[in-house]
Amino acid sequence: MPLLVVGTVALDSVETPTAVRENVLGGSAVFFSTAASHFAPVNLVGVVGDDWPAEHTAMLQSRKVNTAGLQTIAGGKTFRWRGKYQPNMNDRDTLEVHLNVLEQFNPVLPEAFKQSHYVFLGNDSPKNQMKVLQQATGRKLVVADTMDLWINIQNDELKALLKQLDGLVLNDSEAKLLTGDENLVSAGRKALNLGPRFVVVKKGEHGAMFFSRDETYVLPAYPTARVIDPTGAGDSFAGGMMGYLAERQAFDPQTLKTALAYGVVTASFTVEDFSLNRLKTITRKEIDERLIEYRKMLSF
Amino acid sequence: MPLLVVGTVALDSVETPTAVRENVLGGSAVFFSTAASHFAPVNLVGVVGDDWPAEHTAMLQSRKVNTAGLQTIAGGKTFRWRGKYQPNMNDRDTLEVHLNVLEQFNPVLPEAFKQSHYVFLGNDSPKNQMKVLQQATGRKLVVADTMDLWINIQNDELKALLKQLDGLVLNDSEAKLLTGDENLVSAGRKALNLGPRFVVVKKGEHGAMFFSRDETYVLPAYPTARVIDPTGAGDSFAGGMMGYLAERQAFDPQTLKTALAYGVVTASFTVEDFSLNRLKTITRKEIDERLIEYRKMLSF
Repeated sequence: MPLLVVGTVALDSVETPTAVRENVLGGSAVFFSTAASHFAPVNLVGVVGDDWPAEHTAMLQSRKVNTAGLQTIAGGKTFRWRGKYQPNMNDRDTLEVHLNVLEQFNPVLPEAFKQSHYVFLGNDSPKNQMKVLQQATGRKLVVADTMDLWINIQNDELKALLKQLDGLVLNDSEAKLLTGDENLVSAGRKALNLGPRFVVVKKGEHGAMFFSRDETYVLPAYPTARVIDPTGAGDSFAGGMMGYLAERQAFDPQTLKTALAYGVVTASFTVEDFSLNRLKTITRKEIDERLIEYRKMLSF
Repeated sequence: MPLLVVGTVALDSVETPTAVRENVLGGSAVFFSTAASHFAPVNLVGVVGDDWPAEHTAMLQSRKVNTAGLQTIAGGKTFRWRGKYQPNMNDRDTLEVHLNVLEQFNPVLPEAFKQSHYVFLGNDSPKNQMKVLQQATGRKLVVADTMDLWINIQNDELKALLKQLDGLVLNDSEAKLLTGDENLVSAGRKALNLGPRFVVVKKGEHGAMFFSRDETYVLPAYPTARVIDPTGAGDSFAGGMMGYLAERQAFDPQTLKTALAYGVVTASFTVEDFSLNRLKTITRKEIDERLIEYRKMLSF
């Protein structure tokens, strides 16, 4: 049973201290889909302009990603983002954002997508996320991402959405902003009170924290000296996590924890090259081997 | 067999967003000793002025800490530090440093201390750390801490010391400064090339990383919502780690990893109250119980 994801599809320009890549494939739904496709087929919903290179759609289709939900707006331009990483390769400045076709995005699920059991609402306005939720009538598990922009400008809509979610995934600064708490552990617990049954706080190079009524835990990032481009790591984490859940068709606590570990490991490949270059060429065997290494790393 | 520690003994003034404590017990050797004393007896070498409250010495002595190496300089004043924590309780500003008797500190090991097998050179000048090393003729394992000041002003002496160490413990920004590498994984590996057989990089709220020729791993911090005062957490980590090694009288890779986990768990108690208030009242049973929780947290 395919996993449903709705999110951004983008052309990214990325500057690091040693290299620049212009207009390469990116976007939350693209990183998510490619990561998840190592575990389960994916139904993708997003929007592009008619400047969108057909080769990117072909790449996704070659990897069990159903692009029937990828709208093309004639005369429109694809969403573009330009960012520059600091020498530590963790802090980054957003240099340019061109929403383009995203401004008109009205997510519509193809009929076949509505029965997806596992649903990921990638970073988009809570209004759009709610529209997707209402169409996904076959949903069994719904997890959403959000960002500081929506916490600030669509707070009421976000709060309404949170009440309908099983899981919320957000990064550390967003968790602090959402809850007004500077301690990540209490911020994570406060986010639970807003509705979701579990909350995952992404900490970039420091891994991820998990919160439910019964559990609090932290998993560190997989240590790598080879950080070429961290763009998409958080979306790859979510893709690995949700992909594993969809593969298992389960989300009990033990499966969720293994899913988080798969998310960490999947994201660790993404950063090893620009764009999707590493993520799309790895094999499931490589992911599994790194998971075994990671499990061993955490055993004492 | 007692563990030897040489380091600072201080009176700290600590400001947090909600409280202030004036002239409370602190210093790297004091946090280290108290943490380590849950595992093994400790031989302490340090210096104070005659303003030093006798009750602090009595507290240490009540916990298997031999204070025969604690010098008192008549007419001198104890080292004082004042710091203020930001609302996130991780970033802090040093408001005042009064070295006082530390400026004259010449570490001298009582005869009985020289045979200590496990030696921790707490944060002090590399010149002084080398003096201790030369007196510790019975040493089997020597681990040192350092800081940005010494990396900057006694770099040659530090490099000479590093060649004589088994282990180096330092924090993330110091590791970057020492090696000129912004990626912590490659910084840790480069630090190995300077001499020590293993390197531990402390990441505060994000845990610690371990590097040897054969291993690289990360252990996250134990998640706690109750952060009252993080002062001394890094020294408590080192104390828990070295205390466990001294208790086991072993430092094979598996024992080292368990020792790091004990360091993480011991430090997680320190932050739960000001000064030594929590660290000195916990029991070994509480530490062991939290270690079991921590191990479970990292299993999937």
